[in-house]
Amino acid sequence: MSKIAIFPGSFDPFTKGHEDIVRRSLPLFDKVIIAIGNNAQKNRYFEIDYIIPKIESCFEKTDNVEVKVFKGLTAEFAKESGAQFLIRGLRNTTDFEYENSISQANKYLWKDLETVFMITSPHLAYISSSLIRDIHKYDGDVSGFLPYKI
Amino acid sequence: MSKIAIFPGSFDPFTKGHEDIVRRSLPLFDKVIIAIGNNAQKNRYFEIDYIIPKIESCFEKTDNVEVKVFKGLTAEFAKESGAQFLIRGLRNTTDFEYENSISQANKYLWKDLETVFMITSPHLAYISSSLIRDIHKYDGDVSGFLPYKI
Amino acid sequence: MSKIAIFPGSFDPFTKGHEDIVRRSLPLFDKVIIAIGNNAQKNRYFEIDYIIPKIESCFEKTDNVEVKVFKGLTAEFAKESGAQFLIRGLRNTTDFEYENSISQANKYLWKDLETVFMITSPHLAYISSSLIRDIHKYDGDVSGFLPYKI
Amino acid sequence: MSKIAIFPGSFDPFTKGHEDIVRRSLPLFDKVIIAIGNNAQKNRYFEIDYIIPKIESCFEKTDNVEVKVFKGLTAEFAKESGAQFLIRGLRNTTDFEYENSISQANKYLWKDLETVFMITSPHLAYISSSLIRDIHKYDGDVSGFLPYKI
Amino acid sequence: MSKIAIFPGSFDPFTKGHEDIVRRSLPLFDKVIIAIGNNAQKNRYFEIDYIIPKIESCFEKTDNVEVKVFKGLTAEFAKESGAQFLIRGLRNTTDFEYENSISQANKYLWKDLETVFMITSPHLAYISSSLIRDIHKYDGDVSGFLPYKI
Amino acid sequence: MSKIAIFPGSFDPFTKGHEDIVRRSLPLFDKVIIAIGNNAQKNRYFEIDYIIPKIESCFEKTDNVEVKVFKGLTAEFAKESGAQFLIRGLRNTTDFEYENSISQANKYLWKDLETVFMITSPHLAYISSSLIRDIHKYDGDVSGFLPYKI
Repeated sequence: MSKIAIFPGSFDPFTKGHEDIVRRSLPLFDKVIIAIGNNAQKNRYFEIDYIIPKIESCFEKTDNVEVKVFKGLTAEFAKESGAQFLIRGLRNTTDFEYENSISQANKYLWKDLETVFMITSPHLAYISSSLIRDIHKYDGDVSGFLPYKI
Repeated sequence: MSKIAIFPGSFDPFTKGHEDIVRRSLPLFDKVIIAIGNNAQKNRYFEIDYIIPKIESCFEKTDNVEVKVFKGLTAEFAKESGAQFLIRGLRNTTDFEYENSISQANKYLWKDLETVFMITSPHLAYISSSLIRDIHKYDGDVSGFLPYKI
Repeated sequence: MSKIAIFPGSFDPFTKGHEDIVRRSLPLFDKVIIAIGNNAQKNRYFEIDYIIPKIESCFEKTDNVEVKVFKGLTAEFAKESGAQFLIRGLRNTTDFEYENSISQANKYLWKDLETVFMITSPHLAYISSSLIRDIHKYDGDVSGFLPYKI
Repeated sequence: MSKIAIFPGSFDPFTKGHEDIVRRSLPLFDKVIIAIGNNAQKNRYFEIDYIIPKIESCFEKTDNVEVKVFKGLTAEFAKESGAQFLIRGLRNTTDFEYENSISQANKYLWKDLETVFMITSPHLAYISSSLIRDIHKYDGDVSGFLPYKI
Repeated sequence: MSKIAIFPGSFDPFTKGHEDIVRRSLPLFDKVIIAIGNNAQKNRYFEIDYIIPKIESCFEKTDNVEVKVFKGLTAEFAKESGAQFLIRGLRNTTDFEYENSISQANKYLWKDLETVFMITSPHLAYISSSLIRDIHKYDGDVSGFLPYKI
Repeated sequence: MSKIAIFPGSFDPFTKGHEDIVRRSLPLFDKVIIAIGNNAQKNRYFEIDYIIPKIESCFEKTDNVEVKVFKGLTAEFAKESGAQFLIRGLRNTTDFEYENSISQANKYLWKDLETVFMITSPHLAYISSSLIRDIHKYDGDVSGFLPYKI
């Protein structure tokens, strides 16, 4: 049975921190699906149709990475995708407490779903999508945070 | 003088984690008032009139639990209710830092009000009202989180 | 049934932070037993026979406080003392994580034992017995940390 | 070269905790600029024109404190003001994780900008602008939190 | 290339929390080596020769688990064992901060070594080897913490 | 009045993380004294006479850095040295909680002593003296952690 993991998030935008986790997790899985949650209630800063090709451009030379969009519950999308694993990055203790709850909720929703964590590389651990949006809003240079040009 | 405690919150919804704290605190107090804060600025997901009977149903056989709704400051409602104690649950370090500030603010507002804490039972510690609302919004099964049917 | 709580610790020495928690918990209980754990493996800095009268001196005018010494497991001493409650202070997140484990272990050892927490008053939250021992070792003035003279 | 630091924030309102950090940092710098970020997206509770004179009133007898308003990125305002330092207060671990990311982002935006921290005095560490707004909204007494009358 | 992970520790003793992480990680790897660090400076409470058969008894019916003893650096033992992965459990924020440093040190010692984390199941998260030793020292019942009889 | 800071520690050994904090603090002060605490109770791994020249070698070209050894309380050494400031690095939340207590104890011992913090650069934040001693004990390569050869 092939080992499939989903890497879920809103990726608004997809950062070097996200890329770090995907690349480091690839040796563990046969396929990693970068799953963009399309949450209707949230107004995105970077549109989904703008972000998908950007993310795909990062993994052109990597054949076991796919980019998909989903609505609804992450656990259900994992089940539909045949993914028994969920991969997540941890940057600090605030992330840990949040992810601790989410991973148990996902386990409640689908008992076979295992969340596997990696600690984000230290030089990328301060990067977050919200920080990038704040800096970009005031015309700050965000190029150092993104694995593609915007 | 009877020992009265209030257990304040928005309870949107009231969870098994909340119930855990109320039941475990009952031996400490003569009466526990579950105090639903009716904060006009916040759009509730579960209406207050829907939640009150649900909470009451959990404690039908428990005579020293009351359910009340209040507006304004928790410390003032405690004073009006003759409650010298405030009971709160702690799930993780994020809760601790938040509750540390709130309990000192309540002490500032009414110096005789003592906040007493219990650590939420570990198998319930990942449950939060916001998590339940997120899952419920996408038709996920939240029955395992609630001590009543919805 | 009277409400008895034990306040366990090595109290090497008993600090103003400890006194803060005992005094603030008294309205909750009929009796609070300050339980000094006499752990043979640990070399005490302040001998137990020196500390007992010092602690007792703090509560001379308080009739529902007792000072006892015990060996072995806290949960067992609580059961022997007829105490259904254990009272503990929380100063910061490091305390929270430690106390979270200990309170669950005590619940495992005696399911009827409930640990009740209070957050230490902020101006006393930096005080610890080990800090006092370090300062005292180098002839520093520790009088501000202790509710009695040494 | 004179040592200039900016103390940035939205200061909605400016609290005794903020004042504590400014006063304790003054011996370190030749000038401290209290920099009020005027973020158009955020609806202020206390208008900027109301807050400026209040803050200035706190430092009437202190000649090396200025109050300025800025738009956009903190790092850029620091550069324009000739400030090589940014001074921030830390109240708890939640602050620490947030400030850790922000200080690295500011270093990314301007490598010569050094963020210097002080730990807020314990009796003021529970005070936050959001807590004050919540209490003020319900006509609670916030005078103990503010270094000026409102 | 087969995916080998080592699960390093002193395992003094090996707990249900350790077992939880090994079992949940098995679907990720072709082989998991439970690697007991034999640190000469530390006086063990449970001798290594006593613990090895106990651990092996837990995985009799599991063919891709081995138990080995090693001296020296974990990263070097991983390299010698052909293991590109290190699997570790996370119980709380104290664990997170410790493991964050250790995983980066291991990456420094062998850049190809990736540490993969899982969050310990909540009902086991309070268990630690040191807690078990403390309880066992005072003849407390530790059977609920161990996946084998002692 | 010249601005003097002490940077206290046991420095067993002095690491790149320590060096990072000293260098980044130099623009703030007229002089920084690297103060090695000579705690008789602790067996050092690297002798003080071995470490002093190593630290001095790091700052040969920096005229406002001194290296001194002291016994007893840090606050008293600061007072004797005419240092109104204490500079400390913060790597994570565990450091923060520890330093929060220590800085308040130092303020209690000498009210004019202000502790100023900087957050350690992320790529150095995992380094600790104890980690280096552990790796060095097993002949691991610690050169990447030290700003001098050993």
